Amino acid sequence: MKKTLFYDALIGPLGEETAPVFLKGDLLVEGDRIAALARHPERLASDAVTKVVDARHLIIMPGLVNTHGHAAMSLLRSYADDLPLKEWLEQKIWPVEDRLTSEDVYWGTMLSIVEMLKSGTTTFADMYFFMNQVAEAVAESGIRAVLSRGLMDAASSGAEALREAEELYTRWHGGENGRISITLGPHAIYTCSADYLRKVMAVAERTEQQLQIHLSETAGEVENCYSRHGCSPVELLEKIGFFSYPVIAAHCVHLSDADIAILAEHGVGVAHNPGSNLKLGSGIAPLARLLAAGVKVGLGTDGPSSNNNLDMIEEMRLATLLAKGTAQDPTLVSAATALHLATAGGAAVLSLEGVGKLEPGYKADLIGINYDQPHFYPLHDPLANLVYAARSADVEFVMVDGQFCVENGALTRLDEEKIKAEASRCARRLTGKGKIRE
Amino acid sequence: MKKTLFYDALIGPLGEETAPVFLKGDLLVEGDRIAALARHPERLASDAVTKVVDARHLIIMPGLVNTHGHAAMSLLRSYADDLPLKEWLEQKIWPVEDRLTSEDVYWGTMLSIVEMLKSGTTTFADMYFFMNQVAEAVAESGIRAVLSRGLMDAASSGAEALREAEELYTRWHGGENGRISITLGPHAIYTCSADYLRKVMAVAERTEQQLQIHLSETAGEVENCYSRHGCSPVELLEKIGFFSYPVIAAHCVHLSDADIAILAEHGVGVAHNPGSNLKLGSGIAPLARLLAAGVKVGLGTDGPSSNNNLDMIEEMRLATLLAKGTAQDPTLVSAATALHLATAGGAAVLSLEGVGKLEPGYKADLIGINYDQPHFYPLHDPLANLVYAARSADVEFVMVDGQFCVENGALTRLDEEKIKAEASRCARRLTGKGKIRE
Repeated sequence: MKKTLFYDALIGPLGEETAPVFLKGDLLVEGDRIAALARHPERLASDAVTKVVDARHLIIMPGLVNTHGHAAMSLLRSYADDLPLKEWLEQKIWPVEDRLTSEDVYWGTMLSIVEMLKSGTTTFADMYFFMNQVAEAVAESGIRAVLSRGLMDAASSGAEALREAEELYTRWHGGENGRISITLGPHAIYTCSADYLRKVMAVAERTEQQLQIHLSETAGEVENCYSRHGCSPVELLEKIGFFSYPVIAAHCVHLSDADIAILAEHGVGVAHNPGSNLKLGSGIAPLARLLAAGVKVGLGTDGPSSNNNLDMIEEMRLATLLAKGTAQDPTLVSAATALHLATAGGAAVLSLEGVGKLEPGYKADLIGINYDQPHFYPLHDPLANLVYAARSADVEFVMVDGQFCVENGALTRLDEEKIKAEASRCARRLTGKGKIRE
Repeated sequence: MKKTLFYDALIGPLGEETAPVFLKGDLLVEGDRIAALARHPERLASDAVTKVVDARHLIIMPGLVNTHGHAAMSLLRSYADDLPLKEWLEQKIWPVEDRLTSEDVYWGTMLSIVEMLKSGTTTFADMYFFMNQVAEAVAESGIRAVLSRGLMDAASSGAEALREAEELYTRWHGGENGRISITLGPHAIYTCSADYLRKVMAVAERTEQQLQIHLSETAGEVENCYSRHGCSPVELLEKIGFFSYPVIAAHCVHLSDADIAILAEHGVGVAHNPGSNLKLGSGIAPLARLLAAGVKVGLGTDGPSSNNNLDMIEEMRLATLLAKGTAQDPTLVSAATALHLATAGGAAVLSLEGVGKLEPGYKADLIGINYDQPHFYPLHDPLANLVYAARSADVEFVMVDGQFCVENGALTRLDEEKIKAEASRCARRLTGKGKIRE
């Protein structure tokens, strides 16, 4: 079995979630798992080690877990911004999405995977269409992903989409040494009727799949739900039994205290997307209240056309800063909590066992942050530096499932130049713009 | 005179502030000024050019202007976080600041200048003490700065500080080919009595200096001002005639409509520090309302112990995202406006003429952003990419006053390794922590 030894790294967070420590020492990876940690100067035996990595300038931490997005929408990055949500969707995004081909989705997803890997994301959740191509991109790239075919019955194609979702599950779930998980992705309560949601739940029941859904993203969604159903979107889903299944609920910006209690009671995982929620004018999710109520929370970027990047370090920082600033309380959502949300917390939201922590037996989904940078000096506190000062460009290596995907800041398995060129070609055909060079 | 020609760059923003364009072409620098711009394929004459730079992969834009901070506080980066403001200041920051020496301030400032230059900042405003050492660091590094000796009369040293401020002005104002400006820095209304502020204003009157002050940063400051003076901090300053002088007012988080009208009427420049205001729990400044009222606004990072970095691209993004998110209106503070605030808007707040724009005759304070990166593809809109997707690590070159300070991402005039080591040594002596290597 392949063994990789990282020596003299700063390794963490370790120990308690609210008061983690970092140790200076060695970390050994065997196959796809973390095998051992040892404090310096105690040295892990390096015989039979395949590869030795000098990590004296690195913080080694768990890879970042992006709990919500639509990777292929990178093709529409910066295509339309600063517009009212309705105009942005109806006049800009949807007309182009109607013309998307499976090839577009493959190259758009690949472009996003390149960006995610290079910025330290080792797992991402995705909801889109042409999901076989997304799964292929995941398989080739080495990243870990939780995928769902987006499901709507507003169009006449709801039954067909659900059939595709079932095929996706059969073909890919658990594939690539467990790197690929398939879940069911009913889009939202305003694009799926209660009847349709019940059909989706029946498939979830039969196949034991998790569910992903957009939930209470905008004030308008909540108001309309009250008008049509006399209750909030969260209450509506509880009423039809949706929360009997494990659920990833994206956004959850507009929540009553009763909504929060329901999410906590049913163990619903919330994918908090602070950047997208700000940029689209959706609002600011009540992160501190969710955490105080014991709701499981992870962080996400949402799609790159509404963000406009996939930078999880930025989202981590934004999550804690917004919580402090909106409540005018700097003690809320500590650095330790923010780092937990971006790693183990996200893995829990995605129901990924053995992912997101630096413990022997856990999956070797690791990233190395080069802390020999001006913005890390002096090193009073690696944890505060990671959350409040680091930037995604500090990522030097990325390992997923025990395999290097990035070394010395460059991709090891993918051809970045080809991916940028192909994605640009697809975008040009779709939008008539997007030419990077004259 | 030295001439530098950048060819085949994407050059912008150019033209109208609210609807800027980017041209693909050449830019010529002569001495300390921008000499000419030309659209591709028209070529600027390259005879007698000293240096030719291949800029085919670069966006060339004005350098970023950081309108508020305390650079030497880099020595206290990540020394104390997630604490109530009073505890943070009184138990953590002030006791260490009491022990600071001029040498500490020199190396702490140098560390911040390294970080600022490498992340694209070409001008910074600063308020601190041992300001001769700050000015020396500015002179050596090549960056542009607007400096002020912090003034308080809560301590018995108010008169002495004001004397130092006058000496600083005499020695440094206009120095280094105009790269150094000196202003007067009364700290805040709660650390300076009205009598003391009047003494400072008398010096401003005599020397024609601009004033820097912290203003309406926290809800507590405003409440206390009402209790003690029966008016808001902005009203108090207006009453004593403070706004008869050009003023840089940092923070301005808690403002009434009447306050905003006063700031607009007197042409007060606001230094908006969104990251620091969130992290310290001060709140969110009403940027969109300020701009709608016609108030001059620039962006700032505040000190690196309350931020915890000096990343102006992050502040630019945060400024627009917060405005959109808090008002639930994605059309507020467009990408064009955000980029303006971070460049020409900041220069206007600091009263720097001929700085912040790409026009012939303007100072050659330029940065090159490498857009051949996954998060810039496809290039639908360089403006939206700069504001919503770029990161400070994309900065490839930095030129200030016609001189390169950064080339290929590395410092040309400063010894980064020595500065990191000396700053770490100073921090260790001050805090007993801050050792980056075992």
